[in-house]
Amino acid sequence: MGVNLKQLAAELQLSTSTVSRALHDSHEISIDTKKRVREMADKLGYQPNPYASSLRKQKSKTIALVIPEIDNNFFTLAINGIEEIAQKKGYHVLIYLSHEDLQKEKAVTKHLQSGRVDGILMSVTSQTEEVQHLVDLYNTGIPLVFFDRTCEVIDTIKITTDDYDSGYKATTHLIDAGCKRIAYLQVSEALSISRKRLNGYKDAIKAGRLIDETISGEEELIITCGNSNEENYEIIKTRLLAKHPPDGIFASVEKLAVTSYYVCNHLGLNIPEQVKVISFSNLSTAPLLAPSLTTITQPAFNMGKKSAEVLFTMIENKPMQDETQNIMLKSTLIPRNSTK
Amino acid sequence: MGVNLKQLAAELQLSTSTVSRALHDSHEISIDTKKRVREMADKLGYQPNPYASSLRKQKSKTIALVIPEIDNNFFTLAINGIEEIAQKKGYHVLIYLSHEDLQKEKAVTKHLQSGRVDGILMSVTSQTEEVQHLVDLYNTGIPLVFFDRTCEVIDTIKITTDDYDSGYKATTHLIDAGCKRIAYLQVSEALSISRKRLNGYKDAIKAGRLIDETISGEEELIITCGNSNEENYEIIKTRLLAKHPPDGIFASVEKLAVTSYYVCNHLGLNIPEQVKVISFSNLSTAPLLAPSLTTITQPAFNMGKKSAEVLFTMIENKPMQDETQNIMLKSTLIPRNSTK
Repeated sequence: MGVNLKQLAAELQLSTSTVSRALHDSHEISIDTKKRVREMADKLGYQPNPYASSLRKQKSKTIALVIPEIDNNFFTLAINGIEEIAQKKGYHVLIYLSHEDLQKEKAVTKHLQSGRVDGILMSVTSQTEEVQHLVDLYNTGIPLVFFDRTCEVIDTIKITTDDYDSGYKATTHLIDAGCKRIAYLQVSEALSISRKRLNGYKDAIKAGRLIDETISGEEELIITCGNSNEENYEIIKTRLLAKHPPDGIFASVEKLAVTSYYVCNHLGLNIPEQVKVISFSNLSTAPLLAPSLTTITQPAFNMGKKSAEVLFTMIENKPMQDETQNIMLKSTLIPRNSTK
Repeated sequence: MGVNLKQLAAELQLSTSTVSRALHDSHEISIDTKKRVREMADKLGYQPNPYASSLRKQKSKTIALVIPEIDNNFFTLAINGIEEIAQKKGYHVLIYLSHEDLQKEKAVTKHLQSGRVDGILMSVTSQTEEVQHLVDLYNTGIPLVFFDRTCEVIDTIKITTDDYDSGYKATTHLIDAGCKRIAYLQVSEALSISRKRLNGYKDAIKAGRLIDETISGEEELIITCGNSNEENYEIIKTRLLAKHPPDGIFASVEKLAVTSYYVCNHLGLNIPEQVKVISFSNLSTAPLLAPSLTTITQPAFNMGKKSAEVLFTMIENKPMQDETQNIMLKSTLIPRNSTK
């Protein structure tokens, strides 16, 4: 009975991920390290996972895409970009939904470790604070790329947009439009992209010298919503009916802007007269809303394409240019009537 | 070397699907037929597909969902309903997109015949006129349920909405609102649901006695669009700029209503003053559009749930009530400002 990956890594004083990649002949690992790992593996009688090794020999011609939700135009457009590349490569894309549920995400990652797919594209849930299941998935050696909602501690390639800059620009846009009390709406405090957007917001608030007017209530302008539209409706309504309501809303997620519109409609609050709204959004109806919605639009389709391209480079085990690691694409601010 | 399924079926003078179901001990087949099939299979040395038979013994705990597009709120809501049931059953849902492309649908169905999944939920593409690939899939014996966009010739359970009635009601709603020249927009002439909605439209036009005024141009009011929004934009624009433009638009698909709004915006045509619009739609922003969009809303979430429930009944090989075959759910007409 030989050792497993963990025991082999401990003996070598290397991480399991380095050992796994060395055994899979990854270009990321030096020739010397690969040699050392192989020799120790032979010496200790290391038993590789039969699935993982059959995977490298016989391609399943499928990749998995794990995303937190589907009723979000960012993801639907990204999927179309991913599918375009996969189709060219003759691959099937299996889409798994984690439904913003950490337990579901864990179940999916466990399922994927059985080695049914040649590679994995993933955007994590808003609950993903513990990451052992992602570490375990990464350690199987199956090529893994994070896009948009990444897991920072895992050392694989991440495709994101300029979330800090976009948060800064969106907030500055509201300040320039005359807003004094700007609320920031998010679905999670845990998400890396939400933190970056929030940091952009905070720095813009400081730079715009709104800090004196909002300092006492600054924290209460940062509003963490939930996952149900009903719950979010009540949270936003309560805030808009408070003594010092915001005169600007920056929604870091599309669905929170849609819910804000519903709340304003029902309360008879005029957008943009009484409250201005800007949102991260790829909503196809943004220009058709009453009033048309100012958006920070992510290059979702291209982000999907780029993520898939990088994943296939990994699957084909080609060396990657260093500058392709951790790609950051630019979003676009599109001013419309909701911030006039 | 034994016979295959086709040869066995020919010898028995039964369809391959009946033989397949008999061999899989389906409750749909009589005990006598099962006995006759098994005896002939033994006699001729029938060799079952190893995948299909391992499938019945060892569940993969996954179901496949094959849909034509993802940027459509009907499907995103249906997916959520399907996932709710699958999660309760401890199943993973693999989503495959056919992108309205018959070749892609064929590739996916071929892939699914390898027996990776315990059951399949499917909505066909707008191009699906030849159906041999679906017949082949059905004949593997993997439980198969069609929902919304069905394949009529295959004798499995179909979950639909009341498309004829809804088409009739939508058209009558426009007639009651004063429309004299009502255009019907569709993405395909091949789709069963599109034909049913169109028949409802045609009968309502007759009942509303619009026939005399529109008879010469009746055909040109039935407009078949394509799959790209750009192409559809040009088709709708051309029709609205014609000598006798429609004063009412009935979009049988959500995205055609959104494109119609864009065209009207750009041409400066007032909705509902100059042209009234009604659409099949599950758009979450329908009430927020300028003007709010009158919709025929399908019970998408419940349709997803129902489809998954029926599929799991088949997977678990439980007898089904006869009345649960071919379930038809009701859609709702929600009048808003676009038809005022």
